[in-house]
Amino acid sequence: MFEKLRIHIEKIVPLSDEEFEHISSFFTYKKYKKHQFLIQEGELVLCNYFVIKGLLKLVYTDDTAKEHIVGFAMEDWWETDFQAYYKQTKASMSLECIEDTEVLCLRLEDYRKLCEAFPQLEHFFLEKAYMGFISAQQRIISSMTVGIKERYQQLVEKYPSLIQRVPKSLLAAYLGVSRETLSRLSL
Amino acid sequence: MFEKLRIHIEKIVPLSDEEFEHISSFFTYKKYKKHQFLIQEGELVLCNYFVIKGLLKLVYTDDTAKEHIVGFAMEDWWETDFQAYYKQTKASMSLECIEDTEVLCLRLEDYRKLCEAFPQLEHFFLEKAYMGFISAQQRIISSMTVGIKERYQQLVEKYPSLIQRVPKSLLAAYLGVSRETLSRLSL
Repeated sequence: MFEKLRIHIEKIVPLSDEEFEHISSFFTYKKYKKHQFLIQEGELVLCNYFVIKGLLKLVYTDDTAKEHIVGFAMEDWWETDFQAYYKQTKASMSLECIEDTEVLCLRLEDYRKLCEAFPQLEHFFLEKAYMGFISAQQRIISSMTVGIKERYQQLVEKYPSLIQRVPKSLLAAYLGVSRETLSRLSL
Repeated sequence: MFEKLRIHIEKIVPLSDEEFEHISSFFTYKKYKKHQFLIQEGELVLCNYFVIKGLLKLVYTDDTAKEHIVGFAMEDWWETDFQAYYKQTKASMSLECIEDTEVLCLRLEDYRKLCEAFPQLEHFFLEKAYMGFISAQQRIISSMTVGIKERYQQLVEKYPSLIQRVPKSLLAAYLGVSRETLSRLSL
């Protein structure tokens, strides 16, 4: 189960067997059932999660109890309430399984020890952070400039395998429209 | 003029005089007048810019020639069309001076050499990337969950000095509404 993590990291930085054995010792394997929560709003966020198998939604719930989907995560993605994790504050979002899910958990103190022991992993995490930032910025631009239909098409093009697995009601909550609006657009 | 950069980096990683002297040699100082462009849409993006003095806007222009403000940058901020810079593609945005501006430019090849020579700077850039990602994610959540008036108030609270310097018409283009809508809300 750690093999996926190794392949994932080695896309950016090469590692010896000994190095990877040491690196993997910082991670904990966990298994969750569909609908289980990895992060609960209002609680401390202990881990950043690398998804080995499954599908998750990162959800922000507003004052009227309406759910907004901030992000999805599937195989080979990292997900957490990043602000709460990194700044060690309470979660403003929740992270919930859409499918049965297996993850590797990295606690913040272990993340710090890991980067100290393997400075090349800072390069790996930096690359991931840049990609996350670029994606978030593109999402901001899309939401300002194009309509729902085009944003939906962009999603399909960017993440074809994700779209097939995510229920339409959740895609609507990600795009910020109602399920009915998606249907009206024949999406 | 490099002193500001040193103070900025040393908030995250300590540096010796020799180290900083070497680091600063990777940067080039440049001065621009109000309305000048640092990045033109459709052209290659050579640099990431650290702002010493002044104010900039990062602009995405849509198919109808309408300008959308993706971000502002003032003293101590970094700004570029990050996707185009990092992936060495053509700019999809432009970066323009709202005030006379002085910057330190870091070319991508120099950024890479810099990180190779000073691995602790990857830690610095990683911290910056995380903060950028967190800010972008918060902006996405705000745009999905709260109205223009509240988003304006959040801006005022988060960046009080920025708000005083940015014309209302540009704040409207950042928030994704017309100047008239801002006025109607008495903002």
